[in-house]
Amino acid sequence: MSLQLYYAPGACSFVPHAALELAGAAFEPVLVKLHKGEQRSPEFLALNPRGQVPVLVDDGAAITQIVAIGLHLDARFPAARLLPPAGLARTRALELFAWMNNTVHPTFTHVFMPAKFTDDAAAQASVKAHALARYRELLAELETAVAARPGAWLGGEAPGLLDAYALTLLRWGGFAGIDPTTLPQTWALAQAFAALPAVARAVERERLKLNVHQPAAA
Amino acid sequence: MSLQLYYAPGACSFVPHAALELAGAAFEPVLVKLHKGEQRSPEFLALNPRGQVPVLVDDGAAITQIVAIGLHLDARFPAARLLPPAGLARTRALELFAWMNNTVHPTFTHVFMPAKFTDDAAAQASVKAHALARYRELLAELETAVAARPGAWLGGEAPGLLDAYALTLLRWGGFAGIDPTTLPQTWALAQAFAALPAVARAVERERLKLNVHQPAAA
Ligand SMILES: N[C@@H](CCC(=O)N[C@@H](CS)C(=O)NCC(=O)O)C(=O)O
Ligand SMILES: N[C@@H](CCC(=O)N[C@@H](CS)C(=O)NCC(=O)O)C(=O)O
Repeated sequence: MSLQLYYAPGACSFVPHAALELAGAAFEPVLVKLHKGEQRSPEFLALNPRGQVPVLVDDGAAITQIVAIGLHLDARFPAARLLPPAGLARTRALELFAWMNNTVHPTFTHVFMPAKFTDDAAAQASVKAHALARYRELLAELETAVAARPGAWLGGEAPGLLDAYALTLLRWGGFAGIDPTTLPQTWALAQAFAALPAVARAVERERLKLNVHQPAAA
Repeated sequence: MSLQLYYAPGACSFVPHAALELAGAAFEPVLVKLHKGEQRSPEFLALNPRGQVPVLVDDGAAITQIVAIGLHLDARFPAARLLPPAGLARTRALELFAWMNNTVHPTFTHVFMPAKFTDDAAAQASVKAHALARYRELLAELETAVAARPGAWLGGEAPGLLDAYALTLLRWGGFAGIDPTTLPQTWALAQAFAALPAVARAVERERLKLNVHQPAAA
């Protein structure tokens, strides 16, 4: 049994990164420098032809997609309770996981990389502005979900995949001009999560600053 | 135990719709007329504030998100093998499921409802054209996955959630000018899936025509 995680600091790969640490898994973290385009190197494309992190390699099998990697780790490390184990609690967690992945995360992609959606510069600016407004709404929706969480953590009693995703999405908001402290429940959750000794190892490895929001100059 | 599925003909709700029929589940199908805006009625918004199908109501609990509903049905009806039950086969299936849901499906949303991404008419046209080209590439990628499938069906030996999603995404391509017969493996899979007696019940209830592609006038 060998595990490698291809990750980029601050990217969505933080979700499996934190999960591996929470599970106490022995794994090799492999840094991919997205700003240097390493995700488009022939070596990386051989692993994931879509040129994206995260990639988890489990005994030689390269697995992509946060949701699939998360469920894979949950099945492999059941004692870690990365997700609630069964029943409606599990379904509710999967609902939130899927929504973060198919709606909130892609909305940030429109803010951060509008060129993925149109080649036209004016259209890119318009898509970006629209997505930013939408991202604010989605983080407000996340704040409501955090406030209504079923326990200390988003999945209930144990910290796990959902908390890692919430931290990531909130942190990205900071780059987009959204002050995380204006979402107090999510901000408190992200801080508490980052402070867990296991998670702190991932935070340190990625050298993450939780609040990257820059107040507008006066 | 009671199950209701809120669905719209031809929409992504076909995925849980076909799955319920494959599982032989007793359920009440509830039609939501999207073209009449019924998804924005107060009654429907009380069920799903996001105003979207599918919604599965299981003993009074409203569950949204195709991936969560699919995993919920898989856990509830394990004998149906809506997904491979365990191991790397399951992870590979979840990878494809997640990708269809977070990448292929949203790309079609850009083609079909570009106004969700920008208010500017010119930018909408640009986003739509870009998404259409991308959708062609993604269906080609799906065709490769279908060709490499691990058995008769996308999940291996049993027809399930992935086949239903592939059928839906290929069918949508027809509306966008992509002739499904140009993707022969996916087209054959969709036809074989639709012909299964259980699936045929869902196809008939939705009055689905599989190939909606209109050849360009000469
Ligand atoms: N659908 C993928 C999305 C992964 C993704 O968005 N990865 C980003 C980082 S957050 C990436 O690698 N971007 C690099 C690029 O697109 O060049 C998943 O759910 O895992
Ligand atoms: N993220 C949702 C997406 C659901 C979705 O896209 N539903 C569409 C039909 S395919 C819908 O209800 N659209 C109506 C609308 O947006 O007004 C999921 O995975 O279930």
